[in-house]
Amino acid sequence: MQKNNVSIYLIGLGSVGRNFLSILAEEGKLISQRTGAEIVIGGASDRTGSVIFKSPVAPADLLKAKQAGNILSLGKEAPVTEMTENEGGILVDMSSASRDGSRELSMYLSAMKNGMDIVTANKSPLANHWKEIMDRASAGSRTVLYEATVAGGVPLFSLLSRSCGPSTVNEFHGIVSLTANFVLKQMREGKPFSDAVAEAQKRGIAETDFRDDTDGLDGARKTVILANALFGKNMTLKDIRTSGVSESTDAKGMDRYRLITEITRSGREVHAFSGLRGLDEGDYLLSLGEMSLGYEVSTSRNGRLRIQSVSDGPGETAAAVMNDVMSLAKEKFQGKC
Amino acid sequence: MQKNNVSIYLIGLGSVGRNFLSILAEEGKLISQRTGAEIVIGGASDRTGSVIFKSPVAPADLLKAKQAGNILSLGKEAPVTEMTENEGGILVDMSSASRDGSRELSMYLSAMKNGMDIVTANKSPLANHWKEIMDRASAGSRTVLYEATVAGGVPLFSLLSRSCGPSTVNEFHGIVSLTANFVLKQMREGKPFSDAVAEAQKRGIAETDFRDDTDGLDGARKTVILANALFGKNMTLKDIRTSGVSESTDAKGMDRYRLITEITRSGREVHAFSGLRGLDEGDYLLSLGEMSLGYEVSTSRNGRLRIQSVSDGPGETAAAVMNDVMSLAKEKFQGKC
Repeated sequence: MQKNNVSIYLIGLGSVGRNFLSILAEEGKLISQRTGAEIVIGGASDRTGSVIFKSPVAPADLLKAKQAGNILSLGKEAPVTEMTENEGGILVDMSSASRDGSRELSMYLSAMKNGMDIVTANKSPLANHWKEIMDRASAGSRTVLYEATVAGGVPLFSLLSRSCGPSTVNEFHGIVSLTANFVLKQMREGKPFSDAVAEAQKRGIAETDFRDDTDGLDGARKTVILANALFGKNMTLKDIRTSGVSESTDAKGMDRYRLITEITRSGREVHAFSGLRGLDEGDYLLSLGEMSLGYEVSTSRNGRLRIQSVSDGPGETAAAVMNDVMSLAKEKFQGKC
Repeated sequence: MQKNNVSIYLIGLGSVGRNFLSILAEEGKLISQRTGAEIVIGGASDRTGSVIFKSPVAPADLLKAKQAGNILSLGKEAPVTEMTENEGGILVDMSSASRDGSRELSMYLSAMKNGMDIVTANKSPLANHWKEIMDRASAGSRTVLYEATVAGGVPLFSLLSRSCGPSTVNEFHGIVSLTANFVLKQMREGKPFSDAVAEAQKRGIAETDFRDDTDGLDGARKTVILANALFGKNMTLKDIRTSGVSESTDAKGMDRYRLITEITRSGREVHAFSGLRGLDEGDYLLSLGEMSLGYEVSTSRNGRLRIQSVSDGPGETAAAVMNDVMSLAKEKFQGKC
C-alpha cells in the first residue's frame, strides 16, 4: 500500500452512494490536493453482495458496474464482515436505515475494534445506539462522522464544530426533513395524501417506502442525533414522541405548519421537540422553499446563525459524506508533528 | 514551556480584541478540551506599546489592565518587532487596517520567517498584499487564517473549506459590510447622512473614522479577499472599483439597493463587483435585517447555500478569530501521527 493512501469501504450504493462515486470520479484530483491523501476504494457492498478489491478500482468503473448490476465482477466476493476488517481504513455507510439500527451497530463496533474510522449517512444506528457507538469510539480513539445524517447537504455538525469553535449551542430550530414538509405543502394546495406522495416520489424526494418520512420517524431520528451531538444528551428514539402527515391529515388552515425539530436548553434541562408545529408569522423557517432544508441556531459566542440549502437532494448529501471522508483523510496525513 | 501550550501574541486590543479576551477568559476550559491545547498569551500590543509576558498572564487580568489603560505594567515592555520573534507561536492581528497594509505586511513576513502562524481580522494586508503573504506562507509551510476579515461572525472561509470539501465556488452574492447598508437604510427612512452615521455610531456599528465603510473601501477590501481566497485570483485593491453612500446620495427610490459583493465565474473568467446595486425582488439579500450580514454561494458539489448572522458585532467577530486560533492549535497537537 502506498504512503498517503486512505482506503474506503462503501456500504450501500443507492442514489447517495452513486453520487458519491461520481464526485470521487470527477473531483479526484482536487480531493487529493486538498487532503494530501489518495482516496482508494478498498471494497463495496450493495444488494447483490460485497466485494473486496485487491487492486485499486477507479470510481468511474465501480459506478459503471453498479449501473450494470454487477459490482461483484470487479473483485473478490466476500462476506460483508470483511468490510470491517481493514485497519486504518474508513467504513462509509450509505445504506438504508434498518428499523432498529442493530445491523449497523455491530458493523460499526467491529470496524472500530479493527482500527477503522466511520463515516455514515445512516441515521438509524446513531438514533438507536448513540452511547454504545460513541463510547467505543472514544475508548479506541476512533472517529465517527455523520454530517449527512441530518439536513442533507446543509452544513451542520461540521459547521458548528469547525466554524463555531468556542461556542455551545443553546437553541436549534430547523426543518431537517424534506419529504413530510413537501407532502404537507402539496396537501395544502389541495392534493390528497397519495397524490402528494406520488409527486414527491416523482421529484426524487420520497422513497418507495415513504412512511418513515411522512409519519415523522425520520424527523425523530434526526432530532435524537441533534440532541445528542449538540446538547450532550444520550437519547434514543424511545425518548421522543413525534407526529407527521398521513391520509387523515386535514391540511386546511395549516399554512404555517411545518414538520420541524426544536431543541432548547434552559439551565441543565434540554427539551427536544420533533413533529408538526404551527409557526409564528415571520419565523425564519417559513422562508424556506419546498426543496429547501435549513435551520436557525443560537450559539453562546458565534451569535444566531441561519443557514439553508436552496435545493437539497442525494448529490448534496453525497457531498456531505465526501466532506467527512476528506476531513478524516486530512487528519491522518496533515498533522504537523 | 509546557507541552501542548500554544502561545499567542495579540496585536490590537480594540473592541474585537477585548471580546477575544473575554471569550478566552470565560471559555478557556472548553477551548482547551476541544483543541487539546492550552492557549497562552505570550504578548500583547495596543496604542500604548507592546509587552512580552515572561510568565503566563490570565486573559481576565490582561482585559482588566487594558480597561485601566496600563497593559505595559504586566510584563516587559518591548518593541513591537519582538512580537514576531516567537517560533511556534501565533500572531493574532486584531488591529485597525492601515491605509496600504504595508505595516502589517512586514510584520506578517517577519513572523512567518520566524516560524509563526498568522490569524488576522485585519483586511488591509490581505487586500493589498495577498500574493506576497500567501507565497511566503506556502514557501515556509506556514498558515494564514482570516475568517474574521469578511462578513464578521458569519462562517465563510471555514465553512467553505471545512464543510464543502469537494466543492469549488462558482458564485458569491452577499452583504458583507454592515455600516454602509445600515446608513443607507436610515437615509431611506428620511435621515440625512450625518444623522444616519451618528445612529450607526451609537449602535456600535460605525467607527469614529467611518469613511472607509461608507464610501465602499471596506467592501472593496472584502471583495478582493473573497476573489483571491475563493476564486483563486491574485487581485489587489487597484483592480477593483467600488461605490458607497455619502452626503450626496439621494436615497429616494433606493428601497432595493444594497452595498453588495458579487463574484461570478464563467469559464476561466472571474468577475468581481463591489458597490451599490439595485436587487431583484425576491433576492435573498433583501431578507436580511439591518444588523445582519449574509451571503448566498453556489458551489459545484454542495449545492446553493444561504447563510446569515441575525445580528453581527465585535463579539461575533472575536469568536471567528478564536475559531481560527483553535483550528491552528488543534492542528498542532491532534494530528494522528
